[in-house]
Amino acid sequence: MLLDKLNGPQDLKGLSVLELEQLAGEIRDFLVTKLSATGGHLAPNLGVVELTLALHFLFDSPNDKFIFDVGHQSYVHKILTGRMDRFDSLRKQGGLCGFIKRAESEHDVWEAGHSSTSLSAAMGMAMARDFKGESNKVVAIIGDGALTGGMALEALNHIGHEKRNMIVVLNDNEMSIAPNVGAMHQYLGRIRADRHYQKAKEDLQSLLQKVPAIGGKLAKTAERFKDSLKYLLVSGILFEQFGLHYLGPVDGHDMEQLLETLQQASHMPGPVLVHVVTLKGKGYKPAEADSLKWHGISPYKIESGQVLKAAGLPMYTEVFGNALIELAERDERIVAVTPAMPAGSGLMKFAARFPGRMIDVGIAEQHAATMSAALAMEGMKPVYAVYSTFLQRAYDQVVHDICRHNANVIFAIDRAGFVGPDGETHHGVFDISFMRHIPNMVMMMPKDENELRNMLKTAVDYNEGPIAVRYPRVSGRGVELDPVMTPIPIGTWEVVRQGDSAAVMAIGPMVEVAERAAELLRREGLSLRVINARFIKPLDTAMLDSLAEEGLPLLVMEEGAVQGGLGSAILEHYSLTGRAGTPVSLIGIPDEFIEHASIEEQQVVAGLTPERLAAEVLALQPKRKRATNQH
Amino acid sequence: MLLDKLNGPQDLKGLSVLELEQLAGEIRDFLVTKLSATGGHLAPNLGVVELTLALHFLFDSPNDKFIFDVGHQSYVHKILTGRMDRFDSLRKQGGLCGFIKRAESEHDVWEAGHSSTSLSAAMGMAMARDFKGESNKVVAIIGDGALTGGMALEALNHIGHEKRNMIVVLNDNEMSIAPNVGAMHQYLGRIRADRHYQKAKEDLQSLLQKVPAIGGKLAKTAERFKDSLKYLLVSGILFEQFGLHYLGPVDGHDMEQLLETLQQASHMPGPVLVHVVTLKGKGYKPAEADSLKWHGISPYKIESGQVLKAAGLPMYTEVFGNALIELAERDERIVAVTPAMPAGSGLMKFAARFPGRMIDVGIAEQHAATMSAALAMEGMKPVYAVYSTFLQRAYDQVVHDICRHNANVIFAIDRAGFVGPDGETHHGVFDISFMRHIPNMVMMMPKDENELRNMLKTAVDYNEGPIAVRYPRVSGRGVELDPVMTPIPIGTWEVVRQGDSAAVMAIGPMVEVAERAAELLRREGLSLRVINARFIKPLDTAMLDSLAEEGLPLLVMEEGAVQGGLGSAILEHYSLTGRAGTPVSLIGIPDEFIEHASIEEQQVVAGLTPERLAAEVLALQPKRKRATNQH
Repeated sequence: MLLDKLNGPQDLKGLSVLELEQLAGEIRDFLVTKLSATGGHLAPNLGVVELTLALHFLFDSPNDKFIFDVGHQSYVHKILTGRMDRFDSLRKQGGLCGFIKRAESEHDVWEAGHSSTSLSAAMGMAMARDFKGESNKVVAIIGDGALTGGMALEALNHIGHEKRNMIVVLNDNEMSIAPNVGAMHQYLGRIRADRHYQKAKEDLQSLLQKVPAIGGKLAKTAERFKDSLKYLLVSGILFEQFGLHYLGPVDGHDMEQLLETLQQASHMPGPVLVHVVTLKGKGYKPAEADSLKWHGISPYKIESGQVLKAAGLPMYTEVFGNALIELAERDERIVAVTPAMPAGSGLMKFAARFPGRMIDVGIAEQHAATMSAALAMEGMKPVYAVYSTFLQRAYDQVVHDICRHNANVIFAIDRAGFVGPDGETHHGVFDISFMRHIPNMVMMMPKDENELRNMLKTAVDYNEGPIAVRYPRVSGRGVELDPVMTPIPIGTWEVVRQGDSAAVMAIGPMVEVAERAAELLRREGLSLRVINARFIKPLDTAMLDSLAEEGLPLLVMEEGAVQGGLGSAILEHYSLTGRAGTPVSLIGIPDEFIEHASIEEQQVVAGLTPERLAAEVLALQPKRKRATNQH
Repeated sequence: MLLDKLNGPQDLKGLSVLELEQLAGEIRDFLVTKLSATGGHLAPNLGVVELTLALHFLFDSPNDKFIFDVGHQSYVHKILTGRMDRFDSLRKQGGLCGFIKRAESEHDVWEAGHSSTSLSAAMGMAMARDFKGESNKVVAIIGDGALTGGMALEALNHIGHEKRNMIVVLNDNEMSIAPNVGAMHQYLGRIRADRHYQKAKEDLQSLLQKVPAIGGKLAKTAERFKDSLKYLLVSGILFEQFGLHYLGPVDGHDMEQLLETLQQASHMPGPVLVHVVTLKGKGYKPAEADSLKWHGISPYKIESGQVLKAAGLPMYTEVFGNALIELAERDERIVAVTPAMPAGSGLMKFAARFPGRMIDVGIAEQHAATMSAALAMEGMKPVYAVYSTFLQRAYDQVVHDICRHNANVIFAIDRAGFVGPDGETHHGVFDISFMRHIPNMVMMMPKDENELRNMLKTAVDYNEGPIAVRYPRVSGRGVELDPVMTPIPIGTWEVVRQGDSAAVMAIGPMVEVAERAAELLRREGLSLRVINARFIKPLDTAMLDSLAEEGLPLLVMEEGAVQGGLGSAILEHYSLTGRAGTPVSLIGIPDEFIEHASIEEQQVVAGLTPERLAAEVLALQPKRKRATNQH
């Protein structure tokens, strides 16, 4: 075992190509074994074993900077930088992070969970290096999907203009080139990689003139790729035009070819793009066969690839997808819009049922939002299905294009609240704070999956502007589903449990937490009123006003940033309507980023537990009353 | 005069090319005359006179949809659609909007003040048309600068993939083509515009093979354009590769050529890009000579082009630019970052003094933010100078890349608060609400220009994470500037006027408003304490706590959305620290979009006046006390 002797990247330097290849095999075995117990991003990491080895073999991390675009492809990097012994704790509380994490290692220099940031980061690091007169290498590793994100294209334009020294490794794991086309490209790649680049380019030009068929072949290749941008990648034209040198494509599992090309790149001045073709899941048959399923995977049996997933209740995501199909059957205006997450957003069945009404724009959250505004303004009912954390990228478009136009866009905001093992880059804990101050917005959150269905119906029936329903990354509560979806009057809350010791206004999963707190308090002789504050905007002002008059202690509980959240909205309401000074206690996520762990653990860290709520209610009881109850 | 007889676009249909050209001249005279009194976006509109005439001549608005990217180029469109008689009121309260405005005309179908939205809008409108089985044309008109915005590139990728019928007019007003290159492109343009496009393309390919010199010529052309993306535009390669047909470039002031090309485009299936080269300020010499200055202009003398601007105190913008130079003289880590607004952000002098430390990334707010994070993480002190409204586009990058990394990025947020005549798309009224809930953020606003300087010094000295200073689009107060900039302790407010009838916590220009309210109240025998709540985050919790103990009526006044604003922060603080129920009255911008007018008028609309504050303070006085005072 070579892997056992590896303490850091310096131990790679003396290895031969054969030994590196042996190490690649050992790393794959390690990953397949370890992740069978913990789960994690298996397929992407199996795809970059040789690439990561080659980078650490050739370059000198952390002096040279490796910037992983979306750090879930960093497991191999973690293995090579002394963190092999922590893989049993992967993505667990206090354990190894599933992404790049600066606190873990000096070799981790850029954290990212959202895509398309690496080129901007590389540009900043290259500029800083030049300002400081240093000479380290900067290497960004970016996937082909991430390149469609607008900010990556903004960065590419700037990189080509500035001409700083840097290497962009394009990890292309979707391309499957027919052998002859691939051979042609290998040829082009070798010519381009030659150090006598300019002369070779001239040779190539004259070659092209002698082979009239090439134009046609390229055109055919282009048709093979639905996505027109993809063709630009393959041809290299895009990057050359943007002002980057282009090397490749190279086989990302051919160690010798990789080392050769990356070494050439490291000697070239200016920005160089190295196009590396990899296979997601490489080396583990089940993952090779279905890399989408094995992108992020639960624990599994190694031999069969059978996933050991406890059969549970359907997730909110799935309930959403099914409800949308039901609604779309009866309303032709409904179209679904997704920024590259059809599976994650529960839309695969919708896509199968209504292929023409499923609009997947790629990683392009901004375009998706503004396009939805225009669809709505022309009479359609776009349902923009998006994770809360990724909607952050379309904030301006929500303000400027959707809400200012008061367009009838429906937001289906998935993964609202904590997300568990993906951790701080992926939490959906800010959307209330970044959306509720936008004029014209309506925002809802259901207490259970049946209410989610009714809220979708509410949204479809609503024709007065944008309306959002947010729901968590958890299973439903197993409640019965109404046979017919019924809209909920806008701005109405409901009392789900009576009580007069205090009233808590809760949303989403916090309604159940509040119900459990009420059970705890019942033992103390207190009755907690639990209000499902299902409309975050507009508030149920009638209920709020009668609560203020009633005068019982009021609390708000939400799984979102306490700053600017539902609690703030309620405080503002009282202040703005002549009831300033109505006491309301706020329970929400404190002003910090919460690390990876299970959702339940994250709720404990943030204090979103029945025990905490019960304690706060107790503390709010008038002394007299508490004494009576303790009697 | 043809213009006088024009009631709507239908009146254009019978005109000859000669008459259209005459009309173009009349429209230019009209614009130059009218704007000499009102000010406005003169140069951009002079550039699109023929283009707009050609569009309305050929197409059938509003059935066919014109989508202007950044609607400040829509004056000619407004003239042609029955709004000529309203130009005296341009950009004034209740008057003609300076941008597209749906409430004004059925011909206005898409509003935009932020750039790069038109392609996404066009895509949505084209899809909606196809879903509904209709056949109208969709025409987006976008400038070359707006194309570098990430979301425009996201949209371009999707447009090329979907192949819907639409026309994208690229209004390129920066390009100046040498005659021979231009001729070559005209040739290509004519071939490409041919209806027998596919056959012509083959002919072109064989032609290219016979002319080996073309490759070299194109390369030379590329060098002429610093910006690599610009070359892609000129060559048409980018658009062809993305999957759009490319026509052009055509001379945007040659009516006949324009009509011919646009007509050809209208008959071609799929997406077509028409590359139109225009001259900003065309036909008015002062504007032609300095189109940057004449982009948006104050009233001027027609003959001389002399601007009639009242000499006033320097704007905050200018004070910022000067202070940054002073700081950069002594600190080599400081670099300025701007997304295409070096002049608007007051950085022209900085750029002249430190050309190597001025980073203009083009319209690319997202890239600018993330690049700044990386610069900071490598030891630099990036100052990201950006308008509040445009920072909206980098919200996710502020959360995910800057605040989560706790990177030492300095935000210089200009045009915070109302912006006046640019109106609702440009107000900087949301930044407190969308930034203060992000962990690690520090946020300041100065009461005067001297404090702005000290806050910049505070920011440069601060090394514990991101820090923002926001300032308004107004002149300073004319206060004396400290000879040496002195940092302000983080999280400290100051009492600028003593009083014990009530205390108002105000920020920025609202401090002066509060001081004027205090004067009004003095006549009533009341003394208002005015607190400069210059740290929006962190709050001055010591002062807040002692205020609560003192028990006098508390108010907050801010020129920002009341939802999620400074007032909310104060309410949250009391609620989270055991002082729930401390009454605080909030004065801020209500939950709606405020239209164009002067800043003062907008403040009146929002109720941000000394009179309003004085009235609220009066209403908060205990009845007994008020009686006493009235005695």
